[in-house]
Amino acid sequence: MSEQRFEAAMRRALELAANGPARGINPRVGCVLLSPAGDVLAEGWHRGAGTPHAEVDALTKLPDGATRGATAVVTLEPCNHTGRTGPCSEALIAAGITHVVFAVADPGERSRGGAERLRAAGVEVTPGVLEDEVEGFLADWLFAVRHDRPFTTLKWASSLDGRTAAADGTSRWITGPAARERVHEQRAAHDAILVGTGTLLADDPSLTARTADGRLREQQPVPVVLGVREVPEGAAVRRHPQPLIELKTRELAAGLHELQQRGIRSLYVEAGPTLASALVTAGLVDEFEIYLAPTLIGGPRTALADLGVGSIDEQRRLELGSVERLGDDLLITARPLGPHSASPSRLAAEAE
Amino acid sequence: MSEQRFEAAMRRALELAANGPARGINPRVGCVLLSPAGDVLAEGWHRGAGTPHAEVDALTKLPDGATRGATAVVTLEPCNHTGRTGPCSEALIAAGITHVVFAVADPGERSRGGAERLRAAGVEVTPGVLEDEVEGFLADWLFAVRHDRPFTTLKWASSLDGRTAAADGTSRWITGPAARERVHEQRAAHDAILVGTGTLLADDPSLTARTADGRLREQQPVPVVLGVREVPEGAAVRRHPQPLIELKTRELAAGLHELQQRGIRSLYVEAGPTLASALVTAGLVDEFEIYLAPTLIGGPRTALADLGVGSIDEQRRLELGSVERLGDDLLITARPLGPHSASPSRLAAEAE
Repeated sequence: MSEQRFEAAMRRALELAANGPARGINPRVGCVLLSPAGDVLAEGWHRGAGTPHAEVDALTKLPDGATRGATAVVTLEPCNHTGRTGPCSEALIAAGITHVVFAVADPGERSRGGAERLRAAGVEVTPGVLEDEVEGFLADWLFAVRHDRPFTTLKWASSLDGRTAAADGTSRWITGPAARERVHEQRAAHDAILVGTGTLLADDPSLTARTADGRLREQQPVPVVLGVREVPEGAAVRRHPQPLIELKTRELAAGLHELQQRGIRSLYVEAGPTLASALVTAGLVDEFEIYLAPTLIGGPRTALADLGVGSIDEQRRLELGSVERLGDDLLITARPLGPHSASPSRLAAEAE
Repeated sequence: MSEQRFEAAMRRALELAANGPARGINPRVGCVLLSPAGDVLAEGWHRGAGTPHAEVDALTKLPDGATRGATAVVTLEPCNHTGRTGPCSEALIAAGITHVVFAVADPGERSRGGAERLRAAGVEVTPGVLEDEVEGFLADWLFAVRHDRPFTTLKWASSLDGRTAAADGTSRWITGPAARERVHEQRAAHDAILVGTGTLLADDPSLTARTADGRLREQQPVPVVLGVREVPEGAAVRRHPQPLIELKTRELAAGLHELQQRGIRSLYVEAGPTLASALVTAGLVDEFEIYLAPTLIGGPRTALADLGVGSIDEQRRLELGSVERLGDDLLITARPLGPHSASPSRLAAEAE
């Protein structure tokens, strides 16, 4: 069969994958089964954790024996792992599939190795077909699995002199309506939203994504509170449409890993200076989203506190991204410089 | 004579004015003398403090009696003040000038009133011809005279979180070469550059305007140090090509007024957080020039210290101006909002 035929089938598999749910612990995967002549025998996609994987979804659409000698074209390397469903590698072998074509290798610690298992059983394996497209499509899921944590965006809104509140803690409003609406759009676009117990106890935020007129948006981020202090019974976040996740730890990497394990791929951090600074210092921020209002405040309430930068050689260099005017305000995005910055853009994933 | 004839003569007077020196206590003024028929009899301009004013420069080019019945077209209202030279109003009256046309009224406390004096002597007076053009041309001088101080630009260069140095005070470098070169261009474009004794004693800055390869630029700002502490004998600023002005005061408005009295129309402030915050709090900053580098520093060294903003209602709102990328950095300009912000742009004056 020609390479073009595989690419066409992979493009179709990517379309099928997009039918699946965009959030959760499992990736969106599509599968096309081709006859030896190159005709489409069956299609499948994954509908989320606990349901059949894309390969099995396609295989079960055909009667016993009809899959013998067929080629499976899958967006992600077939898994080699028994979870709530069996390993796809074994299902493909059992179905008599003789050739597996996939785009992106499975980076999962437990699920990887499908290609090796297939080859060991004599199945021909062709990796890397449409790899870049599928990398982009799966960017947020791949990032989370490869880094053991969600892609983490730290947001703050400050005056031009870097203050997020007046001396008495009041901060309504520093930025204008356009910037505040963008923040709610960004909340909706992320899987989860994180604050520390300090912010929770001081501000009692709802952590919901709302429209300009105050209604809840359709997509809501999972509210996450990090810290060892209790979230009060009457806290606004307990009335959030998504159930609250409490990370009762001071271990940031462990907390973020727990979020990845719970299917959180992208995290929007609206923390105060203590937690924000700790995340920066630990190298756990992948993108900075800084809203700057044309105002000066001065005083003690800085967006970031101490970063352990004793001398200027230790400053944390970033790469400037976009600079956008939002009403009277500016939105500046930036990413860490250096080896840490190799993270794929989750925006690319959303542009699919 | 037609209005067009006056406008044409005023345009010529403005050209003549531009021959004068762009800095100093006196404004650049041009004058054209017209015969009753509208022909040009003589031209003059002012060459700086201590030399004849434009009107007298023109009058003295004609023999006694030749000016009788003529019209004087002057960019600025003739002065009514005896300084190192006599009042132009009296000189025009003595010369038998019967009509004076000018663009902009003289705002000087001691020099104003020329129009009134001329009218009292029976001279016809037509103000406001080409007023906007001449306002723009004289913007920095007019601002300084009207506000009793130079047009004051506060510059700082900080990280995205508003820090100007690491904890140990080191700050080389936060911004890149393009931003640093722009700062030197701006030093050269201003009449004077101001720091406090704190910055002087801590950093021993040269306060010169230099090229990228370290040579002195042709235009040098007058170095000004504000504060009651002594400038050490060996301070770099004492080797500045312009003589140092020491403002031995803590009274900011008085200090700036003294600069205006010494012919400083535009002031570039590169002060530390204490002096910078005091100028902001006193409402003495007309333009903010903020260089933001894509880096995070955290810690105690903020660009501004306390501004007396206890509650968010007291924040000092600005109007965002330009946002420009300079290499990896951003340059943001802004001006105070409110009645204070009526200051004309000195850049308009430079664009003449």
